[in-house]
This record gives sequence, structure tokens and C-alpha cells, in this order.
Amino acid sequence: MWLEKINQPSDLKLLSPCQLSKLAAEIREFMLQSLNKTGGHLASNLGVVELTLALFYVFDLPKDQIIWDVGHQSYTHKILSDRKNVFSTLRQYNGISGFPLRSESVFDSFGVGHSSTSISAALGMVKANQILHNDSKIIAVIGDGAMTAGMAFEALNNISKNDDILVILNDNEMSISNPVGALNSILTRITSGNTFNAFKNLSRQFLEFAPPPFLEIAKTAEEQVKNFKNLLSSPKGNLFEEFGFKYYGVIDGHNLDDLINTLKNLKDIKAPKFLHIATKKGKGFFPAEQNPIKYHGVSKGFLDFSENSTRNQNNFLEKNSPKTFTDVFSHWLCDAGEQNSKMVCITPAMCVGSGIVDFAKRFPQRFFDVGIAEQHAVTFAAGLATQGIIPVVAIYSTFLQRAYDQLIHDVALQNLPVIFAVDRSGLVGEDGATHAGMFDISFCRCIPNVKIFAPADGVECYQMLQFAIQNLQTNKDFVSPIIIRYSKRKIVDSNEFLENINNKNLAEVNYLKAEIKRDFQHKNSDNKCKNIILALGDLLYTALQIADEVDAMVVNLRCAKPIDFESIEKIIQNLVENISNGSSDAKFDINIITLEDNVIKGGVGEEITTFIQQKFNSNAQNSNKISKAKNIKVYNLGIPDKFIEHGEHNLLYKHINLDAQSILSFIKNL
Amino acid sequence: MWLEKINQPSDLKLLSPCQLSKLAAEIREFMLQSLNKTGGHLASNLGVVELTLALFYVFDLPKDQIIWDVGHQSYTHKILSDRKNVFSTLRQYNGISGFPLRSESVFDSFGVGHSSTSISAALGMVKANQILHNDSKIIAVIGDGAMTAGMAFEALNNISKNDDILVILNDNEMSISNPVGALNSILTRITSGNTFNAFKNLSRQFLEFAPPPFLEIAKTAEEQVKNFKNLLSSPKGNLFEEFGFKYYGVIDGHNLDDLINTLKNLKDIKAPKFLHIATKKGKGFFPAEQNPIKYHGVSKGFLDFSENSTRNQNNFLEKNSPKTFTDVFSHWLCDAGEQNSKMVCITPAMCVGSGIVDFAKRFPQRFFDVGIAEQHAVTFAAGLATQGIIPVVAIYSTFLQRAYDQLIHDVALQNLPVIFAVDRSGLVGEDGATHAGMFDISFCRCIPNVKIFAPADGVECYQMLQFAIQNLQTNKDFVSPIIIRYSKRKIVDSNEFLENINNKNLAEVNYLKAEIKRDFQHKNSDNKCKNIILALGDLLYTALQIADEVDAMVVNLRCAKPIDFESIEKIIQNLVENISNGSSDAKFDINIITLEDNVIKGGVGEEITTFIQQKFNSNAQNSNKISKAKNIKVYNLGIPDKFIEHGEHNLLYKHINLDAQSILSFIKNL
Repeated sequence: MWLEKINQPSDLKLLSPCQLSKLAAEIREFMLQSLNKTGGHLASNLGVVELTLALFYVFDLPKDQIIWDVGHQSYTHKILSDRKNVFSTLRQYNGISGFPLRSESVFDSFGVGHSSTSISAALGMVKANQILHNDSKIIAVIGDGAMTAGMAFEALNNISKNDDILVILNDNEMSISNPVGALNSILTRITSGNTFNAFKNLSRQFLEFAPPPFLEIAKTAEEQVKNFKNLLSSPKGNLFEEFGFKYYGVIDGHNLDDLINTLKNLKDIKAPKFLHIATKKGKGFFPAEQNPIKYHGVSKGFLDFSENSTRNQNNFLEKNSPKTFTDVFSHWLCDAGEQNSKMVCITPAMCVGSGIVDFAKRFPQRFFDVGIAEQHAVTFAAGLATQGIIPVVAIYSTFLQRAYDQLIHDVALQNLPVIFAVDRSGLVGEDGATHAGMFDISFCRCIPNVKIFAPADGVECYQMLQFAIQNLQTNKDFVSPIIIRYSKRKIVDSNEFLENINNKNLAEVNYLKAEIKRDFQHKNSDNKCKNIILALGDLLYTALQIADEVDAMVVNLRCAKPIDFESIEKIIQNLVENISNGSSDAKFDINIITLEDNVIKGGVGEEITTFIQQKFNSNAQNSNKISKAKNIKVYNLGIPDKFIEHGEHNLLYKHINLDAQSILSFIKNL
Repeated sequence: MWLEKINQPSDLKLLSPCQLSKLAAEIREFMLQSLNKTGGHLASNLGVVELTLALFYVFDLPKDQIIWDVGHQSYTHKILSDRKNVFSTLRQYNGISGFPLRSESVFDSFGVGHSSTSISAALGMVKANQILHNDSKIIAVIGDGAMTAGMAFEALNNISKNDDILVILNDNEMSISNPVGALNSILTRITSGNTFNAFKNLSRQFLEFAPPPFLEIAKTAEEQVKNFKNLLSSPKGNLFEEFGFKYYGVIDGHNLDDLINTLKNLKDIKAPKFLHIATKKGKGFFPAEQNPIKYHGVSKGFLDFSENSTRNQNNFLEKNSPKTFTDVFSHWLCDAGEQNSKMVCITPAMCVGSGIVDFAKRFPQRFFDVGIAEQHAVTFAAGLATQGIIPVVAIYSTFLQRAYDQLIHDVALQNLPVIFAVDRSGLVGEDGATHAGMFDISFCRCIPNVKIFAPADGVECYQMLQFAIQNLQTNKDFVSPIIIRYSKRKIVDSNEFLENINNKNLAEVNYLKAEIKRDFQHKNSDNKCKNIILALGDLLYTALQIADEVDAMVVNLRCAKPIDFESIEKIIQNLVENISNGSSDAKFDINIITLEDNVIKGGVGEEITTFIQQKFNSNAQNSNKISKAKNIKVYNLGIPDKFIEHGEHNLLYKHINLDAQSILSFIKNL
């Protein structure tokens, strides 16, 4: 076992190429077994084992610095740099992160998670080297998908001829056909070697004879990738050379000899270098090679292929009953697509994750996967909306951050009817801080015109979406950008959902209004304090779990903007009148507890507190009855003002005191 | 006068080419005279007179739709479409906007202001046309500068071969040299004509003989534009053809015959078409042709060239005394650059506006103008910061929105020491809603790790910047992303500024702490209410103007995150004790008024109200003394929850009741 002998990246340098090959196999086996216990990203990691080995072999870490774009391919990097022994804690609470993290290791030179940041960050390091007279090497590894994001182009556009940077394009969409692997890897070794200048023209000529559009195997709904690949395969020139890079490729990213020789040659060229390698996602594990999308991320126990494994039973794509908010959205999207011929759906490269596969199949003309291009996605939607189309932008909360200006400037300012189905709001569990959707209420609530809804369960999610699209079409006063944000958690009404939807058991509800979900059981009791929980989204059900114990009224806020202050005021007024009727001299406290899975700063809690402060506590014009409620105290529960690490979803909510037990203790201690 | 006869775009179609030429001259004269009274964008508008005429002549507005990227070149468009008679109200309160605005005219098909949105929006309209079976033509006009933004590339990357879209690249950086104007406009007419297919190869051959890099006249500090132009001028191929466009150009954008012929030919080609035209910024007005940057925007009276004109006296670049926060930043930047060899400054194409010209001249190695590329700018800064460099990102508040994800994910999550000098916070006056910086407190305050400062005057601005950089270098606990946000308004201490700075009269102040700027004059009076104004930024001086009339205490908050609650609490405590010592039975009200030029939703006001509600109003454990203050009322003054139109700066603040008089009335009415 060679893996046992590797403790530092430098240990690698003692191995022979043949031994490195064996090590690659061992790493794959180690990764498969370990992920079978923890879950994690699989296909992308299997694809870069050789690349990582070659980089570690040729370069001197941590002096030389590698930036892994997105970072979901960094497992080999982690295993080889200090973290082999803790790899079993991957993505677990208090364990190591699934992404590179500067605070985790000196070998992680830049924290990643979102796509397409690597070239910008690398260029920053290169310029720092120039200023500080350092001679370390900076390498960005970026996938072909990530190249479609605008910020990658912005970075390419800013590189100048003296920048000593190596960008490696890990092209894993194409198959490695023989001509590529053979002719081109030879050419690459020639062009990148010391004999580079002499042979450059020759090699170019060879390249022109290569079968032209070998890269063009793009799938439908991936036009943007195709466009991009056309650029690469153009016989007339090469995009990256136009941007000032010396371009080398395409070489087989699983051939260690070729990789090592090429990298050795490139290492000493002090100029922007672009190395184009071809890899296979899922390499070395047949099921993942066959279906890299399915094996992009795996859950615990994925190696169990027996008939009875949970894994094989729980594929929601094959079953009908929605388990998650994503499933509900998926269900609604198809129904709405059928009812509204002017509705379209847009996703920035999150077709599966956002639950749009079925819609895409049924309405291909009204489905737009724009690639990793959130900014374009949102302004594109705005353009559609100006013409009477109703666009639904399906996007993760964390990625909406990347289209913030477009949301303000192109959609909200023009008050256009665009529906944003914002998935993965709140904490997201194992993906950790980079992917948490914990700011959306704060950064959207301040934007004029927008409405923000947060469904508490599956039926409500379906109905809110339906409420939105119907009102956008029929109610002029309603027209505005609509944000419907929901968490990654399972819905509580999975079992009844289909029945309720199929039986058209859909009450006509005004979702702009809050709803009392549980009233006090002992209204006229002499309790010195009354607890009212105002819950947003599915935290409603967390509140309901503990409401009996403290006889709390539980209100489903439903709408984060505009907040239904009318109902909140009425609830408090009624409570006061009711109690004061019971015992006229009673002085009592009202505790109002707001619950949201957004950061407290800028969340709905602050707006509600401000309302209550101004309406009740501070208002001398209040009736005497209100003043009998000597104290109306408001407490805001939500996500604290810090980034929250990765870990099992429920564990994280416990960690930040947003689980049922913590909330109960909090209320009892008031 | 032909201009008098044009009331509708369709009226144009009756003119002969020669008459159109005369009309162009009349429009230029009309524009110069009108802008001399109102101010506005000049150079860019003079550059597209012929283009606009040709577009209106060939296409059928409003059925066909033109999207002007950025929109600061839309004046001819406005004059020709319904707004000639109200053009004298340009950028004025209740007048017409300086940018296209959907609510203003049916001819403004898409609202703009920020750069690089046009292709995405146009593509949305094209897809809508396909779904709705409309046959209208969609045209995006975009400048060469705007092409460097990532979202423009995202949009290009999403165009497919059946999209009937015309993108016009208005290339105004290059001079129109003879070979281009002659040979190429002939070629263009051939390639875009009906004989297109037959002649295509021929014209390509001609193009290859054209003098190669005629576009390469890029200036220093504009490497990104140079890169981009290399792409265009590459003899091997053309970037836009690689993206699937039929490419036509370069033609002279001031030659009406060529423009009209070309557009007529292009109109019926149902494919993505890319027309590349060359125009001269400031065309037809010699001073602007010579210095398009100076004449990008002009103030009232710019046509007065006499020795005594105010305009010639007020060029801050030539004088030393800072008038604005931008000037102060500019001043500090040079000082800090001298003191700190590891400090760099980054701007996304706002070198002049952000006040970096002097720094750029003195420290060219540490100055980075990355072009219109806010996302890259911020992650690039993060990369620099990881290596021990201290980057200062100079950016307008409204454009920081475009790098929001990068601020969260690349800077704040890694807690990197990047200083953001956020200019144009609050309302910005004549540029209007698209450019208002009224959300930054809300969208930054929710991000963990960041600190947000808001200086009240010039000296404080200088010192806060100094405080930030010194602490980032010496105080580990302080290390974090620092946001220093300031408004477009003039500073109040312009006259004393230099003296104070030059005499090193800089007290060592902890800017994390709030400061009492004016105490009560009659502490022990029997006033039934005490007013405390908590002011953020230069609204402090608005508060001070009226404080005497209501004997208000005025507090300079200084830091929007973290808010100095310790001081706020102490102030309230002291006030209560002081008064209760005076007359032990007094019951009195405390009015706390928060002031910020950010939207109230999510602003500091809500956080302060929440603090006070939880600390005083609702807290039964408070001392008896506090309870004597029967009512502590908090009022949040700031920007309301709506987009605010354009107009003179002070007028707008009056309009939203944030001027001294309105605040005074508000307090008096409490």
C-alpha cells in the first residue's frame, strides 16, 4: 500500500511513475470506501486523481499554490495533504469540509464552493507575487462547465503577457477518443518542451490536420457548452491564445506520464499558460463513468447494489410522492407549464438539483438551461417578462447572490413579473458555509417591489406558486417580482400531498396573510405570560412540536415581504382584550418569538420587532388595555451573525439553537 | 429646421439621406444647447446620432425594439421618440430620466443604467418572440467597454443559430482610420447584402489583407480592452463568429448611407447578426472629440469658455482642497500608497469617478483597472489578500451589487482584509434610481465578519481609512473585510480639511465607537421629552443643523456594523439617572431618532430599534430608574421602500423627508 506511506505531498516525489499509477488506484479505492460511509462528491473526484498526483509530483506545495475551481474535486488533494487520516469525517459536523478551506490546511490556498472564481483568485496571487518578488507558481484548475460563467471570462480578459500563471482546463465532457489521446499528447509534449519554439509552427500544422470538431459532443439543453466548445475546436485559432495564453493540449488527463512531462515543461515558462486536459468524470468506477450525473454526489451506502438497499428505493425521479420542496416545485412546474402556455423556466445549470428535468422533457421550447450564468439568467428573464412571458427562474438561494444586481436593476426596478423559485434556503447541511442560503431574506427584503413568500409545507409550496402565477396574470396590483424561498429539508406532508393536490383540495387562500396555526388552549388562564411564536417557512412545524408544552400561539407568517402586520396587530389586540376581560387587574407579559432560517441581522425578526416597538411599547396613544400588557417582549431566533460550517442538517440547526428542544428551552427560560 | 417636423419615429422615414444628415447636425446643436442648461451625458450621445437615425429609419419602432446598453447614449433616441419637447427637463426632478425607462415611453423597451445587460435582455425578447410567434426585430447596442463584463459574455454564449437578434458593437475607442472606413465599409455592404453568400468567401479574403491590428490603440491601464481588441482584430478568426454570429464590420458609424444600407440588408437575415461600427465619442463638438473623458458628463453652463466661468475654476483635479468624499479618498489613497508598499488599489473601470487618477500615476505597479468587471475585481482582491497584500477596492455602492456573491463567498467567508471604498452611497441625484446606492447597509450588514464605517465629514473619512489600514496591519482581532461608505455630497469641512490633515491634527480615535457630537443644553429641564438623534454618515450635519431648535442630543454612529450599542445604552442610562436625580417623580419620554441614507428596511435603524426594544422596553429586569422613562420611542428615518427617481440631490432628500426641515418638523410633531 503506497497510500500508507504518503503523509506529506513531498513524499510523493520519491515514487516512480509506475508506483504513482498504483497509488492512483489505491486512492480511488480509498475514496470509494470512505464515501460509502460518509457520502460526498464522487464523479468529479474520480476524474482528477491523476491530475492531482501529477500536480503534487511536479510542483512544491504549499509554496506553489493550486486553486481548485468549485472545489468538489479536491478529495485527492485533501487525502494527499495532511487529511488522509481524518478523511472519514468528510462533510460531517466538526469534520473536514467537502471543499478546500484556508482555515483547514495550509495546502488549501483559496476557499471555494461557488463556481468560476479560480482564475480571478489565481491572478490576484500572481500579482501579489510580482509585488512581493515571490517566485511561487500559481495554478488554477477549472472545469469546462465553470468556464461559461462571466467572471471566468472577466478574469481571462485581465491576464497580461508577463503573468506567470497556469490555468488547467479540466475538460470532462468529451470522451477521450484515440486521435486526441495519441497525436495531440505527443504534440503537446513537443510544444511545451524546451524545443518549444522550434517546433511550434510544425505542431500547429499538425493540429490543423486533426479531425476538426472532436469536442462537439454537446448534449441538447447545453447549447452554451456547445458554443464554448466550438470556440475551442475552431480550426482557425484558439480562444485562449487570443486572450494571450500559450495554449497546450488536448492531453489525456489520466495519463500520468504525459501529465508529468507536460507540467514539468510548463513549470518554467514565465507566461500565462493554458493546459487543456481531457478527463472522464467517474473514471475507474464503472457505474459513475456510465452515469456521472447520478454519481455527481453520492449518499452513504451507495456501494450497496442489492435489491433492498434504501438507495434504490428512494429515487424520487421514479416515484411520484414528493419528499422535498424541490419535488413539490417540480410537480407544480409541470402542472403550471400545462396550464400556462406563456410560462417558461430558466435554470443556471441546476436542472436536476432544482427539479426541472420533467418540465424540460415535456416543454423543451419553454425550458432554458443557460449554463453557469446566473447574471444572464436573471436579466434574460427580465427581457422575457417585458414581452408578456412569465418566467420562472429556478435558482439556489446561494447562487441568487451572484445575480443580485440583476434582481435589483433589471427585474425589481422595472417591477417585472418574474417568479424566483429559490431553493436551498437556510442552512444546507453537508455542503457547508459556501452553499448556505442564509442571507436571502435580508438581501431581498430591502429591495422595493418584491414579494417574498416562504411555504411551511408541500401543499403550501404548491399553492403559493399557483397563487403567484395566477395573480400575476389576473391582478394588476399584484404584479411584481415574486420570490418563493424554501429549504432543503423534507416536507412534513409528503404522504398527504398528492391526495390533497389530486383531489383539488386547494382552498383559495390569500397567501399575503398570516395564519394562526395553533391558538392558546387556556386563553383566560392566569398565566403571567403569553407566548406567541411567529414562524417563517417550515420552522412552523418546529414551533408546533413544542407549542403544547408552553401553550404558545403559533402563527404561520407565510409572507416575509410584505409582512402581514395587520394580523399581527390584531392578534395582540385580541389577546389583551380577552385577558383583561377575564381579570381586569391582571398585569401580564407577552412574549413574541420570531423564527426564521435566515440570519437575524436584516431578517424579518428585526422588522417585526421594530413594528411592535413602534406600535405598542413606545406608543403613548395606545389604549389603556394595551398598557396593561406591561411588557411586550420580542425575541428574534434565527441564524447568528457568523458563517456556519458543514454537517448533518438537523445537527446544524441544533448547533445554532433552532431545533425544537432549544426553542422550547429558550421559551421556558423567558 | 427638420427637427421641428419630427414628432414620431415614423416621420423620419419621409426624409431623404441628405435631409437626415442635416437633421443629425440639428440634433447635435439641440443637444448641446439643451445640455448647457441641464447638464447630462455628452460625449457618448454625440457619438451615436447617426446610428440612432439609421436605426429609426430602417426599423419600425415601437414594434421593433432597441435596447441601449448602459443607456447614457439614448438622448437622440429620446429626442426622436416623443420627448423632444420635454428634453429640457432631462435628469431633473419630475422631468425625463437620463436613461431609457419603460415607464417613460413605449419606445424605451428596456430600462438600463448599469452596463452590459442589453444582450441578455434582448435575447429574452427574442425567445419571447419565438414563443409568441411575433416577428418584431430586436436590437442591442453595446459599447466596447461594456463588452468586457462577464454577463455580456454569458449572453453571447447563450445565443443559438436561430435567434433573430442584431447586436451592434459601438466601438468608440478607436479612431476611424482611412483603410477601415473605406475598404471595410465596402466589404460590409457586400457581405450584408443580398449577394452575401456568393461574396462571403471573397470578402473574407479581403479582410485578411487589411492592415492587421488596426484596433490596437489601447491605452495603458486598459489591458482588458486591449485583450478584447486583440480578439477582434485577430487575423485568424473573429470572436463573434466563434460564438455563432454572422459578423459584419467594421463600418463608419457616422456614415448614414453606409449605416442605412447595412441595416436594411441585415434586417431580413433571420440569424444572430453582429454589426461592428466605429464611432467617435464627442463627434461634432471639437472639445469633446479631443477629451471625451472630460466631456463624458457635463454640468450646466459647460459651453461658457470664458476665463471667469465657474466651470473653469472648479476642476478639483487641478486644485488641492478636497470638495467631496471622493476627493478625500483620492488624497488618502496617495498618502497610504506611500506609507504602505503592500497596498494596492483596484477599480472596475471607474478610475476618474472614484478618484484614483493620482494614485494610478504615482503607483502604476499597484494600480489595477480591471475594466467593467466587478465580480473579477472583488475575487481578484481576495486572491491578493491571501498573499499578504492589502487591496483597496474602489467601487460605487450601486456596482458593488454586482459583486455581492464575491463579497460574501470569496472575501467575507475567508475573513480577508480587503478595504472597500464604497462611493456614491445613498441617493445620487440626477443619475436616478439605477445608480442609487441605497441598499449597501442592508445587503452588507447581514454578512458575517464585515465591518461597515460611514464617515460624517472629510477628516473623518480620511481617518477612518487610515484607522482601517493601520489596524488591519497591526491588530489581529481587527482583521476582516472593511467597508467604508460615503455619499456623493460635498464634505462640510472642505476648508479646514487640508489644514487638519497637514498639521497631523489627527486624534487617535477608535472609530468603532460612536461619539456624542452635541449634548443636551438643558439636561435638567422639565421637558417632558428628550430627543436623541443617532445619525449615520454625513446626515450627522443635517441633524446638527436642527438640533438646537429641539435641544436634541446628536450622536455620530460612525460604524454601521458593529453598532456601538455599549455607548447607546450608556447614553440612555445616563440620561435617565441625570433626570431622575433632578426631579425624582418625573415621568418623561425619550425619543430616539435614527438617521441613515439607506433604505429603512434592513438598515441600522431596525437593528437599533430591536436593541432598544429588547434592552429597555421589554426588559422587566431593568432598574426602576429606567422604568421611569415611561416611553422610549424609536423612530427610523431613512429611504422609504420604493425606488427614488432622478433629480437634484437636495431636492430628492427633501422629497423623501431626509432634509433638515423635514426632520425638524418630524421631531417637533412627536
